[in-house]
Amino acid sequence: MNAEILAVGSELLTPARADTNSLWLTAQLNDLGVEVVTKIIAGDERVRLAALFSASLDRSDLILITGGLGPTEDDVTRDAVAEALGRSQTFRQELCDAIAERFARMGRHMAENNTRQAYLIDGAEALPNDRGTAPGQWISLHGSKAVALLPGPPHELKAMFTQHCLARLRSLIPPLAIATRHYRVAGMGESDLDQLIAPVYTPYANPVTTILSTPGDVSIHLRARGETSAEADSLAAELGAKIEALLGERIYSTDGADLEATVGRLLRQSGATVAVAESCTGGLLGARFTSVSGSSDYFLGGFLTYTNAIKASLLGVDPGLLADHTAVSEPVAIAMANGVRDRTGAVYALSVTGYAEGPNSGEVFLGLATPESTTARQLRFLGDRARVRQLAATTALNMLRLHLLR
Amino acid sequence: MNAEILAVGSELLTPARADTNSLWLTAQLNDLGVEVVTKIIAGDERVRLAALFSASLDRSDLILITGGLGPTEDDVTRDAVAEALGRSQTFRQELCDAIAERFARMGRHMAENNTRQAYLIDGAEALPNDRGTAPGQWISLHGSKAVALLPGPPHELKAMFTQHCLARLRSLIPPLAIATRHYRVAGMGESDLDQLIAPVYTPYANPVTTILSTPGDVSIHLRARGETSAEADSLAAELGAKIEALLGERIYSTDGADLEATVGRLLRQSGATVAVAESCTGGLLGARFTSVSGSSDYFLGGFLTYTNAIKASLLGVDPGLLADHTAVSEPVAIAMANGVRDRTGAVYALSVTGYAEGPNSGEVFLGLATPESTTARQLRFLGDRARVRQLAATTALNMLRLHLLR
Repeated sequence: MNAEILAVGSELLTPARADTNSLWLTAQLNDLGVEVVTKIIAGDERVRLAALFSASLDRSDLILITGGLGPTEDDVTRDAVAEALGRSQTFRQELCDAIAERFARMGRHMAENNTRQAYLIDGAEALPNDRGTAPGQWISLHGSKAVALLPGPPHELKAMFTQHCLARLRSLIPPLAIATRHYRVAGMGESDLDQLIAPVYTPYANPVTTILSTPGDVSIHLRARGETSAEADSLAAELGAKIEALLGERIYSTDGADLEATVGRLLRQSGATVAVAESCTGGLLGARFTSVSGSSDYFLGGFLTYTNAIKASLLGVDPGLLADHTAVSEPVAIAMANGVRDRTGAVYALSVTGYAEGPNSGEVFLGLATPESTTARQLRFLGDRARVRQLAATTALNMLRLHLLR
Repeated sequence: MNAEILAVGSELLTPARADTNSLWLTAQLNDLGVEVVTKIIAGDERVRLAALFSASLDRSDLILITGGLGPTEDDVTRDAVAEALGRSQTFRQELCDAIAERFARMGRHMAENNTRQAYLIDGAEALPNDRGTAPGQWISLHGSKAVALLPGPPHELKAMFTQHCLARLRSLIPPLAIATRHYRVAGMGESDLDQLIAPVYTPYANPVTTILSTPGDVSIHLRARGETSAEADSLAAELGAKIEALLGERIYSTDGADLEATVGRLLRQSGATVAVAESCTGGLLGARFTSVSGSSDYFLGGFLTYTNAIKASLLGVDPGLLADHTAVSEPVAIAMANGVRDRTGAVYALSVTGYAEGPNSGEVFLGLATPESTTARQLRFLGDRARVRQLAATTALNMLRLHLLR
């Protein structure tokens, strides 16, 4: 079954407000095996809304409309849907009484315009709202098509959907089991990754494969449907095994855990500690290590050495090295990693030195000091200051991860 | 002029991902006097996307499509738009060369599938992408109708829109003068701020006032329209002066500059330097200082001291203080600030120590060492680990800002 979500409200078309109800609704629908195929955000304009709704209804089985059920002239959802369906609306005394009673419980008088909320589209069932004044409406159409009008405030929406829509939806939908995998991959661009795995996942319509990327980090989502959970899981496992075989240790997570949490888990498993010496990242690497709850088990601390003088005075980097090789060089990355490892007593130390802007922007050296040896890698990243810094920190985390795997 | 924004990508139809590009684009369009009347989020499905795009084009003058320009089979925006317009696409060697050159600069070979990005819809102008591989496309249609195909990654989208779409849009739109103010406020919650300034801005329909907030940081946008820029500016100035009078030095920026850039500007003006000692923020404060281009003029570096042992060994915090007061205490915040100031020679030093989780989560001490004295403040923040850390770093930056103003 395919669904569309139509969020109504002119405030959702301003730069300040994003529709978030649809994210919650999507999770609920996906759990039922319903795919959300389109989301639409519309203003409080009846004619345009009626046209958008009609088109959605032509395309999809289930239309959930959120918002626009309030008492004011701006609230046009009821009128737009009635118009698009070619149905009238009827005043329902019992709905009006329920709204008036709600006001009475709050010690307030019901304003005249609230009576607008007591009109029901012909053929609709009213969905009681125990968190607000606007009743919802459920309209069953031919086949398994259905439309729900739901309130915009998130707490009203969630309660009404859970109490009154879930059971109705289950009766429309064949029971379906879902199994998912969420792989995360470091050290590989999205297009290289896709070229490698596309031949493996493209033949599968089920599971559905979705690839998402942020700088230095690619997520692969598999979602398999089956009549039983064993069937769904077996489908996910089958495709998952093929992807794992192709990507190997480039996969750092099979459950969606992020890179900093993965490295933290490996450090904790080996009872090791880590410290950092950061130049161009200025604290970003430490901030990422410590974004993980419980990171004090393995993260000791480190040095931010943004200037040459500070690299020399705090980390003991030989001023001669800095003069001969510049701060952005392999010998300096190695000296920084050794310096922080010596001064903190950490088992492992990572260093980052590079240019985040200027003519050499993107040139970065990463150092890794271990009990056995200290090495450095030169890297080149494209992009602006923020991206270069993010990629440098991600690559440093991944360098330590790969070392810990061996 | 009316616009619609069509965000393409199946990941935007999952519970995990909201479209945020459209918020930024809406702000840009509103500044030109263009209203966004509908936003649509579509998956990577060519036939459905073509139908959605056709319907948008029937309703509205300007259609901005973001995403789906990548190199994979999943990226269907070019094909869907070409199909809906009934146009062919032509391979352009110069676009292919530019993509190959970008890979070469990274020392990588262009994957075969990237050649898909070198196809241009007939009649379209290519929009260069200096942040990624996917060129955009601009299609002028009859009257003042236009379509832009833009990349999904925010940094690519923003650069391309600013560099290549703004001027094209200005030529389509009747001139309307817009004057804006973008105040940023630290140290005040959104609802307190709104309660204070709502009586002043509510009477104005023009300028339009929009308030946005992130943890610890509130933005107030004023947008005034006029037939001349003098008229628009005078409207913005009138309301702006009233808001400035109410908020005083809580306003840290009148042009939208962020807090780290503002503090950096004040440091540079006074020829001063700063260093940091971070415990619970783990590098976040240093990362924020150094997110600003040119921050090496005033940011020297610092210490990440995540454990007590490291606070003692690197910063010289007296182990007796740590034992008597615990690491999250005023004396330790003061000792950390003094320790980093002494060791780096910075004019100013900031320290952060606190709990980002656990039973005392949100309890944070911030230290500030200056040439005259060292002080510490105790703060309590509500929220999860990420929010507490963010608020601690923001408040530390603001503490230094307020000191520098005096």
